[in-house]
Amino acid sequence: MNDTKGKLRGRDLIVTQEWSREELLDALDLAVRMKQDRLGFTHVLKDRTFFMFFYNPSVRTRQSFECAATELGGHAQFLEPKSMRLKTAKTAGETVEDAAKVMSRYACGIGVRILEDKCSRYGEGDELLREYAKWAEVPIVSMAHDKFHPCQGLADVMGWTEWLGPKGKFDPDILKGRKLLMAWGHGALARSWCSVQEAMLIGSRLGMDITVAAPEGYDLDPEVIDWTNRNCKTHGARFEQTHDLTAGYKGAHVVYSRNWMSPGAYRDGEFRRQEEVEKALKHADWICDADKMALTDNAIFTHPMPIDRGHEVTDDVASGPRSCIYDVAENRLHVQKAVMALTMETP
Amino acid sequence: MNDTKGKLRGRDLIVTQEWSREELLDALDLAVRMKQDRLGFTHVLKDRTFFMFFYNPSVRTRQSFECAATELGGHAQFLEPKSMRLKTAKTAGETVEDAAKVMSRYACGIGVRILEDKCSRYGEGDELLREYAKWAEVPIVSMAHDKFHPCQGLADVMGWTEWLGPKGKFDPDILKGRKLLMAWGHGALARSWCSVQEAMLIGSRLGMDITVAAPEGYDLDPEVIDWTNRNCKTHGARFEQTHDLTAGYKGAHVVYSRNWMSPGAYRDGEFRRQEEVEKALKHADWICDADKMALTDNAIFTHPMPIDRGHEVTDDVASGPRSCIYDVAENRLHVQKAVMALTMETP
Amino acid sequence: MNDTKGKLRGRDLIVTQEWSREELLDALDLAVRMKQDRLGFTHVLKDRTFFMFFYNPSVRTRQSFECAATELGGHAQFLEPKSMRLKTAKTAGETVEDAAKVMSRYACGIGVRILEDKCSRYGEGDELLREYAKWAEVPIVSMAHDKFHPCQGLADVMGWTEWLGPKGKFDPDILKGRKLLMAWGHGALARSWCSVQEAMLIGSRLGMDITVAAPEGYDLDPEVIDWTNRNCKTHGARFEQTHDLTAGYKGAHVVYSRNWMSPGAYRDGEFRRQEEVEKALKHADWICDADKMALTDNAIFTHPMPIDRGHEVTDDVASGPRSCIYDVAENRLHVQKAVMALTMETP
Repeated sequence: MNDTKGKLRGRDLIVTQEWSREELLDALDLAVRMKQDRLGFTHVLKDRTFFMFFYNPSVRTRQSFECAATELGGHAQFLEPKSMRLKTAKTAGETVEDAAKVMSRYACGIGVRILEDKCSRYGEGDELLREYAKWAEVPIVSMAHDKFHPCQGLADVMGWTEWLGPKGKFDPDILKGRKLLMAWGHGALARSWCSVQEAMLIGSRLGMDITVAAPEGYDLDPEVIDWTNRNCKTHGARFEQTHDLTAGYKGAHVVYSRNWMSPGAYRDGEFRRQEEVEKALKHADWICDADKMALTDNAIFTHPMPIDRGHEVTDDVASGPRSCIYDVAENRLHVQKAVMALTMETP
Repeated sequence: MNDTKGKLRGRDLIVTQEWSREELLDALDLAVRMKQDRLGFTHVLKDRTFFMFFYNPSVRTRQSFECAATELGGHAQFLEPKSMRLKTAKTAGETVEDAAKVMSRYACGIGVRILEDKCSRYGEGDELLREYAKWAEVPIVSMAHDKFHPCQGLADVMGWTEWLGPKGKFDPDILKGRKLLMAWGHGALARSWCSVQEAMLIGSRLGMDITVAAPEGYDLDPEVIDWTNRNCKTHGARFEQTHDLTAGYKGAHVVYSRNWMSPGAYRDGEFRRQEEVEKALKHADWICDADKMALTDNAIFTHPMPIDRGHEVTDDVASGPRSCIYDVAENRLHVQKAVMALTMETP
Repeated sequence: MNDTKGKLRGRDLIVTQEWSREELLDALDLAVRMKQDRLGFTHVLKDRTFFMFFYNPSVRTRQSFECAATELGGHAQFLEPKSMRLKTAKTAGETVEDAAKVMSRYACGIGVRILEDKCSRYGEGDELLREYAKWAEVPIVSMAHDKFHPCQGLADVMGWTEWLGPKGKFDPDILKGRKLLMAWGHGALARSWCSVQEAMLIGSRLGMDITVAAPEGYDLDPEVIDWTNRNCKTHGARFEQTHDLTAGYKGAHVVYSRNWMSPGAYRDGEFRRQEEVEKALKHADWICDADKMALTDNAIFTHPMPIDRGHEVTDDVASGPRSCIYDVAENRLHVQKAVMALTMETP
């Protein structure tokens, strides 16, 4: 469907940073065409099977991936590893090697979702995906894991481009020089780093200036910060981190307000959700509201959903005229169809 | 497929009472044609997605809705909200507004099932469906909720018509003037009002005389009784309520024997199943058996299934030659296909 | 698709022993053709529904059956009876008669999986399948039950034939006179008799010499042993049972090493997994390793997976050049497609 077609066939997608800028643009371009012609690609995975492994439950991700497979003519199986006898340090069961090798015989691709609370430390989910990718002979796609959420990142920039540029055409230069504010929000959910880290990475690949605003003690993964910094330099953009939320809003074109966990969320091999929530709720002023949005350059409000309304953002902003949340959510479907088509279609 | 096509596109189905008589007849007519040509409608939802939300588990409903989507060429996703982080009075999570708006981007329609025991009072399930309907941009279909069960009602009258009239053609006048007995049955399940209320409503729209026979203390929803009464008047039929089971059977053409809860089933915001069961089991004589069936005008026996055999009805009646239960159950598939086609097909 | 087509339409598959040798060969022949032309049979169950009842969870079986239905153009519904209100000795609910009769109206076939730990004694699962088969008007297929696992047996002999004979053509005489060693392995899972019993039965139908090697106290079902013995006599093959593992390996062409439970696994109506595991782990020398494989006639290693590596077999054998495990696992898909096509396709 594109010049790079074939180049991406068989490729995993664990983080957008591991795809070239050209490959990402091809995926976005295809996603835009798939949005315009919703049922025009039903031959792509005709009668093929895609496996979805949900170590963590999900609504949006399950709905959009299963819908994506259906609209490509195939079928996504909803699998929950709690019903799988996988080998662990403590229990007998099947190795990832055996599971992945057999699944490769049945399916055209495998999606995996695993978040913080199913891990004993940050990064363990990412390692599991790479273990699957090592043994599987079909593409592995992250459906959100503790470090990254590549399909969310693609949906984000697709949505921002639609709102800031002309609709119906993906212009990769629309986001260049625009300021993306990644604002920490307080909240009762102790959320993952995956979506925010992915947004910073792909935003900076498209030339956006990135500002991360968070209270002290809420640093993100230093390696991802370093990658983002380097992406910005490569594309002539600025990168900054601040604890001053008001300063962050000034001149922003895209405001991304979301809660995320602190680096101290794990202790003794366990994810401490309750402690994180208590700590986060102390920062009641860290919320996106109309007053703060007034400081921006007519910014759009974005969020990967589900939103914790009243904590991360006020209702009037989330449901306001500059909120792109439903379009971004819809784009999950289109980018996932594009990724599956490019990586999994049989020649 | 019909004169009303287009008129029903985009419409919700929460109770048959909210569709015109003509619209119901169109749905039944299409269902009959779909039964005759089982795989003749596979283009209708080709490669589209239908979401099924099961707040309560189910066998028949899940099987028949998922099968209906498949036979229309589409796919039904089986979703259980226990794995959804929906906002409640007590917990952070997503609002119905956000959930419904995003789902409308992915799916051609949404089915919802929520029964008594997931509610804190009678009517709460109905309110939830109307909240979904308020925000969704695609049709909401009840897959049984605390007040109504429209697809069961359609399957009931389709089955009765097949048994009492010529097969293969839906004649809307077959049921006119026939006596429908809604007989309370004792049992160990403390069942919902939804199926019996729906049967009374749609039966009376088709001109049936309705008799409700139940022990004292088992009144149904007064508003539904009132609607039924008015439907009967509109169509020149009789409506009566009695505590005399024997009198109820006399001259009946259709006998519907099923347990239902009492109006006192909730206390302090909880559904008291065990108390209801204990209370119901005291009425051991409230069972449909051959002696009572002998009082009727060669009535057929009907039940929405699953049957609590030995409580609601004896085996010899349930499996006897005048039992239409399996045909009614099969019709669930056909009427649901018809409803989905009429409300959800893309022009 | 074959001379016997039509003969098998509507047939149940509960154990291969109940199909004629010719019928089994037809199924294997079709499976080989389906493997060669993976997406060439998508019309067979086009837009039809297959029900999968998992009383026990499963990975391989669920993946391969659901994938099979998809690749035949249909859809497999994943159903877990824990969410079904089926009647039991203790609880109200629906009878198997009612459930099976209604499901026959919706689906083209029904698969059932029920293993030891969901039964109160050996054989109860088999009885449940036969109860379903009694009432259903569509084929019942075992997806593994306490006694048998017919699709695993078909996949086994298909894989062994591929490895021991020419690829791409199913020659029913390849296995004739080859020695199949069924070796008990120690392990931490207390496994079912179903796969090993099925392998003995179908192997002996294809003329293999069968040796069962197990420690004292690990006899299999005497009726199955008797059938295997008779199969061997019919086809001029040898059958022997031994407690001498080393003797068993000598001259083997196919080595099947797997744990299985003892005949004393049930007590007071309960399956005693933990006791079985403790008893089994005492036999640490009952493992398939390179030294033992060296005693064979260049045997292939086979296993129905998932493998309990380090207990049933060493890694170097399981992942070695003579291991056919992934091919056998893949064949599950192909034989299940063939069985579904032969028994469930509408004329």
